[in-house]
Amino acid sequence: MAAVKVHGSPFSTATMRVTACLFEKQLEFEFVSVNLREREHKKEPFISLNPFGQVPAFEDGDLQLFESRAITQYIVQEYAEKGTQLISRGSKEMAITLVWLEVESQHYDTPASKLVWELAIKPMYGMSSDTVEVEESEAKLGTVLDIYEKRLSEFKYLAGDCFSLVDLHHLPTIQYLMNSQTRKLFESRPRVHAWVADITARPAWSKVLAMQNKN
Amino acid sequence: MAAVKVHGSPFSTATMRVTACLFEKQLEFEFVSVNLREREHKKEPFISLNPFGQVPAFEDGDLQLFESRAITQYIVQEYAEKGTQLISRGSKEMAITLVWLEVESQHYDTPASKLVWELAIKPMYGMSSDTVEVEESEAKLGTVLDIYEKRLSEFKYLAGDCFSLVDLHHLPTIQYLMNSQTRKLFESRPRVHAWVADITARPAWSKVLAMQNKN
Ligand SMILES: N[C@@H](CCC(=O)N[C@@H](CS)C(=O)NCC(=O)O)C(=O)O
Ligand SMILES: N[C@@H](CCC(=O)N[C@@H](CS)C(=O)NCC(=O)O)C(=O)O
Repeated sequence: MAAVKVHGSPFSTATMRVTACLFEKQLEFEFVSVNLREREHKKEPFISLNPFGQVPAFEDGDLQLFESRAITQYIVQEYAEKGTQLISRGSKEMAITLVWLEVESQHYDTPASKLVWELAIKPMYGMSSDTVEVEESEAKLGTVLDIYEKRLSEFKYLAGDCFSLVDLHHLPTIQYLMNSQTRKLFESRPRVHAWVADITARPAWSKVLAMQNKN
Repeated sequence: MAAVKVHGSPFSTATMRVTACLFEKQLEFEFVSVNLREREHKKEPFISLNPFGQVPAFEDGDLQLFESRAITQYIVQEYAEKGTQLISRGSKEMAITLVWLEVESQHYDTPASKLVWELAIKPMYGMSSDTVEVEESEAKLGTVLDIYEKRLSEFKYLAGDCFSLVDLHHLPTIQYLMNSQTRKLFESRPRVHAWVADITARPAWSKVLAMQNKN
């Protein structure tokens, strides 16, 4: 039995963020499926792992965590010596990484997650998407991607010249959005487009997608 | 001339988050006022410090940062030996701190910031608040505060038994909301209420408020 356990759904963006990180770090883990349709995430035993009743939750021995971005930051620090580094060591480089981690969480994620919900999840449940919501979120996402286009003309990746946790945190929403009408926002910006092609081609990311086919 | 500079407004919640941290760490800094009414944050030279055109921005020698939560994390790591510790050193304690930092940013901040806008900022500009928005945000904030009430029955502060960056990140929105109708959500939960009284009484926080009277 592996010491590291991820409780979640292979289709949940927040769960995929954590499994992508574990595959990059080449860590073994046990995946405990939480059935969202059965609302298992709102009941015991799951709710004791995360009082907010959302996937994923995470265990490493007797340490229990939730919130995907806290889990990935724990993993990169605790298992610094394994797999891809994903974070810079110097205090100045680390500070720049912190800035762009916040940009993903504070600026990119809100419109991106709304669009995933409207254009990928709702249709899956036979609901129709709200076109006003889609338009507003696409406008906000476009503004963020303009700033990324400029940043990616100066550096190969968002936090600098190495692939990092910052880029990785974007992967799950990008995956869904590249299969939706919102693809055009990424494709119309050449540097953003090249960055998307680069980060989605990583072997660790294929392993995250392969988990969806097993389920 | 101090090496550390904060560019912002003494009334902006995100700016107050950074100055609170600097006062806790007993660090000297220069405060560069950015006039939001004149929209200085959307123009050069500010926009070169933060492409998103929001306060605060931060300098430490030739290092330039933005995003309040990235700045505070840089400060506590870079100046670990000074003032209040604000973050645990052990990897497990640090992981728990990361979880609750994410809770503030992902769950608490959205409804809290909407309420600050509706109930404190809009009235200041002579705009009337949107009652539907207020009701929805108060319901969301209430759910988060229920989880805080339980957490604070187990630990004195959100990340454990010491005051940390997690508690500090809540201060600016709490300050505005305790002067609004939303105060009732904090006061009706005894542990949350005691926590608010404790953290707003810190000397470093008085210094943040004193900066508003000078302007
Ligand atoms: N901020 C959380 C978000 C987690 C989240 O939104 N999980 C979704 C699936 S991607 C979920 O559990 N949704 C069900 C619900 O909220 O009831 C994280 O990053 O872990
Ligand atoms: N996520 C940012 C938020 C910064 C922010 O929202 N700043 C506000 C003042 S509290 C601002 O500059 N508002 C003006 C604008 O957005 O145009 C941070 O934490 O630093």
